[in-house]
Amino acid sequence: MKAGVTRKPKDRIRVAILGATGYTGEEATRILVSHPHVELAGLFSLEFVGQKVWEAFPRFSKRLDLVIQKFEAGASLEGCDAVVACLPHKATMGFIAPILEEGINVVDLSADFRFSNPDTYAAAYGVQHGYPRLLERAVYGLPELYRERLKGCRLVAVPGCYPTSAILGAAPLLKKRLVRRSGIVIDAKSGVTGAGRTPSARFHFPECNESVSAYGIGKHRHQPEIEEQFSRLFGAEIKVTFAPHLVPMNRGLLSTIYLDPEGDVSLDEIRAAYEEMYRGEAFVTVLPDGVYPRTSDVAGTNFCHIGVTRTPEGKIVVTSAIDNLRKGASGQAIQCLNVVFGFDETEGLT
Amino acid sequence: MKAGVTRKPKDRIRVAILGATGYTGEEATRILVSHPHVELAGLFSLEFVGQKVWEAFPRFSKRLDLVIQKFEAGASLEGCDAVVACLPHKATMGFIAPILEEGINVVDLSADFRFSNPDTYAAAYGVQHGYPRLLERAVYGLPELYRERLKGCRLVAVPGCYPTSAILGAAPLLKKRLVRRSGIVIDAKSGVTGAGRTPSARFHFPECNESVSAYGIGKHRHQPEIEEQFSRLFGAEIKVTFAPHLVPMNRGLLSTIYLDPEGDVSLDEIRAAYEEMYRGEAFVTVLPDGVYPRTSDVAGTNFCHIGVTRTPEGKIVVTSAIDNLRKGASGQAIQCLNVVFGFDETEGLT
Amino acid sequence: MKAGVTRKPKDRIRVAILGATGYTGEEATRILVSHPHVELAGLFSLEFVGQKVWEAFPRFSKRLDLVIQKFEAGASLEGCDAVVACLPHKATMGFIAPILEEGINVVDLSADFRFSNPDTYAAAYGVQHGYPRLLERAVYGLPELYRERLKGCRLVAVPGCYPTSAILGAAPLLKKRLVRRSGIVIDAKSGVTGAGRTPSARFHFPECNESVSAYGIGKHRHQPEIEEQFSRLFGAEIKVTFAPHLVPMNRGLLSTIYLDPEGDVSLDEIRAAYEEMYRGEAFVTVLPDGVYPRTSDVAGTNFCHIGVTRTPEGKIVVTSAIDNLRKGASGQAIQCLNVVFGFDETEGLT
Amino acid sequence: MKAGVTRKPKDRIRVAILGATGYTGEEATRILVSHPHVELAGLFSLEFVGQKVWEAFPRFSKRLDLVIQKFEAGASLEGCDAVVACLPHKATMGFIAPILEEGINVVDLSADFRFSNPDTYAAAYGVQHGYPRLLERAVYGLPELYRERLKGCRLVAVPGCYPTSAILGAAPLLKKRLVRRSGIVIDAKSGVTGAGRTPSARFHFPECNESVSAYGIGKHRHQPEIEEQFSRLFGAEIKVTFAPHLVPMNRGLLSTIYLDPEGDVSLDEIRAAYEEMYRGEAFVTVLPDGVYPRTSDVAGTNFCHIGVTRTPEGKIVVTSAIDNLRKGASGQAIQCLNVVFGFDETEGLT
Repeated sequence: MKAGVTRKPKDRIRVAILGATGYTGEEATRILVSHPHVELAGLFSLEFVGQKVWEAFPRFSKRLDLVIQKFEAGASLEGCDAVVACLPHKATMGFIAPILEEGINVVDLSADFRFSNPDTYAAAYGVQHGYPRLLERAVYGLPELYRERLKGCRLVAVPGCYPTSAILGAAPLLKKRLVRRSGIVIDAKSGVTGAGRTPSARFHFPECNESVSAYGIGKHRHQPEIEEQFSRLFGAEIKVTFAPHLVPMNRGLLSTIYLDPEGDVSLDEIRAAYEEMYRGEAFVTVLPDGVYPRTSDVAGTNFCHIGVTRTPEGKIVVTSAIDNLRKGASGQAIQCLNVVFGFDETEGLT
Repeated sequence: MKAGVTRKPKDRIRVAILGATGYTGEEATRILVSHPHVELAGLFSLEFVGQKVWEAFPRFSKRLDLVIQKFEAGASLEGCDAVVACLPHKATMGFIAPILEEGINVVDLSADFRFSNPDTYAAAYGVQHGYPRLLERAVYGLPELYRERLKGCRLVAVPGCYPTSAILGAAPLLKKRLVRRSGIVIDAKSGVTGAGRTPSARFHFPECNESVSAYGIGKHRHQPEIEEQFSRLFGAEIKVTFAPHLVPMNRGLLSTIYLDPEGDVSLDEIRAAYEEMYRGEAFVTVLPDGVYPRTSDVAGTNFCHIGVTRTPEGKIVVTSAIDNLRKGASGQAIQCLNVVFGFDETEGLT
Repeated sequence: MKAGVTRKPKDRIRVAILGATGYTGEEATRILVSHPHVELAGLFSLEFVGQKVWEAFPRFSKRLDLVIQKFEAGASLEGCDAVVACLPHKATMGFIAPILEEGINVVDLSADFRFSNPDTYAAAYGVQHGYPRLLERAVYGLPELYRERLKGCRLVAVPGCYPTSAILGAAPLLKKRLVRRSGIVIDAKSGVTGAGRTPSARFHFPECNESVSAYGIGKHRHQPEIEEQFSRLFGAEIKVTFAPHLVPMNRGLLSTIYLDPEGDVSLDEIRAAYEEMYRGEAFVTVLPDGVYPRTSDVAGTNFCHIGVTRTPEGKIVVTSAIDNLRKGASGQAIQCLNVVFGFDETEGLT
Repeated sequence: MKAGVTRKPKDRIRVAILGATGYTGEEATRILVSHPHVELAGLFSLEFVGQKVWEAFPRFSKRLDLVIQKFEAGASLEGCDAVVACLPHKATMGFIAPILEEGINVVDLSADFRFSNPDTYAAAYGVQHGYPRLLERAVYGLPELYRERLKGCRLVAVPGCYPTSAILGAAPLLKKRLVRRSGIVIDAKSGVTGAGRTPSARFHFPECNESVSAYGIGKHRHQPEIEEQFSRLFGAEIKVTFAPHLVPMNRGLLSTIYLDPEGDVSLDEIRAAYEEMYRGEAFVTVLPDGVYPRTSDVAGTNFCHIGVTRTPEGKIVVTSAIDNLRKGASGQAIQCLNVVFGFDETEGLT
C-alpha cells in the first residue's frame, strides 16, 4: 500500500467516530465539532443509540445535532474519509480491516495496533493478534517521533496515555544515550477519567475522592508499550519499572521518571538535548530550571509540559505532564489526523 | 539525666499545646480532648489569642472550653507534666531548653531535634543548631523503632511526615539488608494539609485542586532525615533520591519506594521480614499480596498501611500510606506521649 | 408492649449489624468497634460473605477480626441484645418483625418505620406497608425531639439525612410558631456518600467531581418525612418545597432553610428559641451571629451546627450542617441505641 | 456620544487587558489568544510585571509571548481599539474615563458601572460613585437582554457571575409576569475561582475542600444588582432573598431560584416563555423536562443551562448553571466585545 501518496489533499474531510460515548470518544467529538477542516459524519456507539448527542451529553446542545447510531460490523461509513476509533482493546482489531478495505483512514485509540510484534501484544493483552499484517502497516501515533511516517498513513495507532507522557519525557535522553538503559523507574499519577466511563466500585466517587493509591505495579499493559518505544529510541532493549497511581482529579497525568546519567553528563547537555528535540514542536514545552509541570496547566490542552532536574545524588528526574484525554488520547488522535491529511498540526487543538 | 526513672507513673497528666492553632496543633488538641489520661492544661498560640478555642474552631463547640493563650517565652506552664510543641522549625529550639529545665517533658513536632548531628541540621535548615547537647538527649519519636528509648524520655523529636512513611515502609528491608543501599528512590505524594495552615498562592484552592505536581526534588529537608534513619537501620551510609508531590486532597501521604534486592531474595523472605518486625505493632499493617494501600483507609487514624510488590524486572516496590496529620505528626506525637508516660500506646488513638 | 420496662440495665450489650458493608453499615461498625458498652456480635451482609471484615475494609485491620456472615431471613442472632439494621428500604420491614419477636431491639436506618401513617409510606415509597402495627410502635429516632419515648423503645426508626438536618434546623421556629407554615423552602446540599455504595454512572468519580447539580426537586422521598415532622412540631399541616443537590465531597450535608417570620419576631426572640431548645443538647450547636456552619466542621462527628440569619427583606434563613453518615445516619443510630439502653448519650460518639 | 455610529467595522481589532493576572484577566487572555478577529495588544497588571506571560502562567507557553506590563494611570494604550478591564471594584472607575476619552472602547468586568443609579452603587459598595454620568452611558453587558443597546456601545458593564446566572434563569418568568414579584429566593452555589486569586485563610485548599457553607446571606453585593435587573424585567420593584454558598470545585455556578407562579400558569406556558426568549440564543439552553443542569456541562464554555420544574406544592423552581469565569465573567465580556464590534457573537467562544 502506498499510503495516501496519490490522494489529492482535501480541504475538508468527513470523519466518523466509533465508540463516541466513552470519554475518549466524547473528547474527540468535542475537538472535531469545531475543527475547521472536519465535518462530523457520524457518531457510533452501543449506548444512547437513537438519541441526539446533546440528549446524551447536554454540553453539545446548540452545538451538534447528530443522532448517535448503533455501532456494528458493517455499519455504513459511506462517504467517510476517516474514522477515529475509540473502541475497546481486543474488540477493535476485528472492525478495522474491513474499514481499511473501503479506503477509509483509521486513527485508532485502542492498543490493538501499537506493538510491532504480535507476540508482545499477545503477552500484554492475553489474546493472539488476529491481524499481524496490519501491525506492520500501523504507525505509532506520536507525531513528535514519527511525523514523517504518519503523513498519509492509513492506520494510526494512537499511544496510550502513560506511554505518551513517559516517552515524551524521556525521549531526548534515550535518543542521545545520555542515560543508562537499566534501572529506569516511572512513577505515574493519573486522574480518574483515565479509567474510562464504566462505573465500578473502584471509581465510585467516595472511593477514589480524597485518596491516592498505586495499582498494578509491574503488571500494567502500558509497560511493554513504553518498553518497546524506549528500546527503539535507545537502540537496545530497555526494561523499566512502572508504577501507576490513581489521583483524585478528573484529568491529568504526571509521570515522574528516574534515570541514571551515562557518565558525567551535565544538566546543560541534558537541557540542550531537550531543546534540540522539542524546539520546533507546537505541543511540547520544556519548563525553565526549577519550574515543575502541573497537570492543571495542560488540562484541556494538547500540550506536554516537561521539567528536568538533576539531584545532588546524581539521578536525573524528569516530570512530564499531559491531559490524559487530550495529548494522552483524543487530542493526540486529532493531531495525528491533521498530520495524516496534511492539515496544520494544531488545527482544532488550540 | 536519667529520664523519668524515679518518677512514679501517673494515671492522669496535664498537657499544654504550644502552637495550638496550626493544623498539627489543632489535631493534637482533637486527640487529647478525648484522651482518658490527659487533661488539657493550656492552648498557646500567636493567633486567636483570647478567644475560646471553639470560637476559632467551631468543631470544638460543646467539647472544649479553653481560652487560647498568648504564646511567648516564659509563658506559664505551671503544673504541666508535658508539652506538645507544634511550633515552627528553627524557632522551636530556643523555647525548649527552659521548659525542660522546669522538669516538663517535651514532645516536639518540629525538625529541631530530629538529627543526631548538628551539622546535618545546619546543612538542611540553614542555621547553626543552638542546642547541640539537647540533640544528644532527644529520642527520635518513632515508637516502632525506638520504643525502649522513648520510655520516660524527656525530649521526643517526632519525625516528619515523609520520613515516617518512608522509614516504616523500608525498615524491615534495610534492617535485614535484603536490599542494596544504593539507588533507592522515594516518590512521595502528600495531601495539602502537609503544607500547613498559612495561606499562599500555591495552596490557594483553585491552584492545587485538580492538579498534581512535584516540588523540591532533591532539595526537600526531609531527605537528610530519611537518610539518617535509613543509614542507621542499614548500618552504613545511605543516600536516597526523594521526590515529593502535591496531590489534591486534604489528608494522606503515600510513599512509593523503589529498591533493588540484595541477591535473589524471594518475596516470601521479604514478607517474613515485615511480618517479624510489625507483627506486634498496633498501628502498622502489612497488606496481603496484591492489595495496595489507599490513603483514605488510614485517614483520621494513626495507622500505616504497607504494600510490598516484587516486579518481574526485579525491583522491590513498597507503598506506604499514612495520614500526614496523624501518624505523620500529631497522632505519632500522642503515641510517643503514651510511651513516655507508660500509658497504653493506643490510648486516645483508636 | 411495655418496651424494656422490666429489663435490668446492662453494662454491656451485644449488637449485630445487618447490612454491614454499605456506607451506613460500615460507619456503624466503625463507631461500635470502640464503643465501651457494646460488643459487636456479628456483621451480616450479602457481599464479602466469608471474608474477614478487614479484608473487605482494610481500615479495620488490627482493630476488628469478625467474619462477614451471610444475611438471610432466620440468620442466627442468638445472644444479641440489639441489631442496627442498615438494609434497603422496602426490603427491611419483612426482616424486622421476627427479630422483634425474639426480644431483640432494633435500630433501623431504613425509611420503613419513619412514618406514622402507612398511606404516607405507600405514597412515598410506592408499596403498601406490610406491617402497619409496627409503625405504631416505632419511635422516630431523633433524640432531640423524642428522647423520652426512645428510652427502652424496641423499634427505633432513624431519620433520613436530609430530614435530620432540616428538622433540627427549623424545630425551634416551628415549635414556637415563630414562622408561617406556608412557603417554607429547603435547599439542601449533600456529599456523595449520601447516595450509597452501589456504583452507577451518576456517581462515577469524573461525573460528579467538579460539578454541582440539583435532582429530584419536589419528588424526593425525604420530603414527606420532613413534612410529617414539621407538621407535628407546628401542630398543623405543613407542606414544604424541597430541592436536594449533589456536591462534590464525600461527607457532609447542609440545608439552607428559608422561612417567613410570623409577625415581627426579632432575631433575639429567634435566638432565644434555639437557645432554649438546644442548650442542654450534647450534639447541637447554634453558632454565634455571623458565623455560618461548614460541613467540614461536623464531618466525622455526630454534631449539627446551626446558623440563623434574618435578612433585610424579612426572611429567616437557617443553615444546618451535619455529617450525613454520622448525625444523618449511623451516628444518630448509635445515639439512639445509647438512649434506648440507658448509656450516656455520647458514648462512642466523641 | 454617538456610540460607534460612524466607525467603519474592522475585521481585526487590537485589545489590551487591564488586570491580566487575576482569574478573569487570565481567562480573557485565554479566550482572546485564539480569537480570529482580535490581536492582543497588551497585558497589564501589578503582578508579574516584566515577565513573559508564559513565565507567570506556563499554560501560555508556545502560545503567547507578550511581556506583562505595569498597569498604572496613563499606561500607553496607543493603537488599541478596546480594553477588557479586570480591575477591582471601586478602583476601576477612576481609570475608565481617560481611556474612553482616548476613543477606546471599554468592556469592564468590575461592578463600577453596573447600576443605573449611583445611590444604589454607593449603598452596595460603600463609596460615592465618582462618575455618575458614565453610569448613564454604560450598558449592562448581558447580550440576551440588551443586545441592541450593546452594538457599538463604548462602555460595557459586564454583569456579576451570580446575577448572570439568576437573571438568565428567571428572565422569561419575570418579563411575562408569570410569577409574583414577592418572595423570590435565590440559593446560589459557586466554585472557588469566584473568590479571585488572592490567597486567604478562607480559600486555603484544606479549608474549603470537602466542605460546603453559606456566606453573606442578605448582604452580598450582587443582590442589589440582581434586584435592579429583576425589577426592570418585571416593570416594578423586586426584592429577593439571596444566599450564596461556596462549593469545593474550581469553576461553576448554579443558582436555584424559587418563585411563586402568578395564578394558575401551567408548566407548558412556562416552557413556552423560555422557548420564546431563548430560541435564537447561541449560549442559552433550556433542558428538557426532568433534566437538571450540571455545572460540569457548562465548565469551560460560555453556555447557560437552565432547568425548569414545577413542584406539587406549586412552586416554580429554576436551576441555572454557568461557568463563573466564562459566561459569568470573561466569556460574557468577549461575547459583548463581539456584539460591540459587530463580529459573530460566538467568535472565540466555541
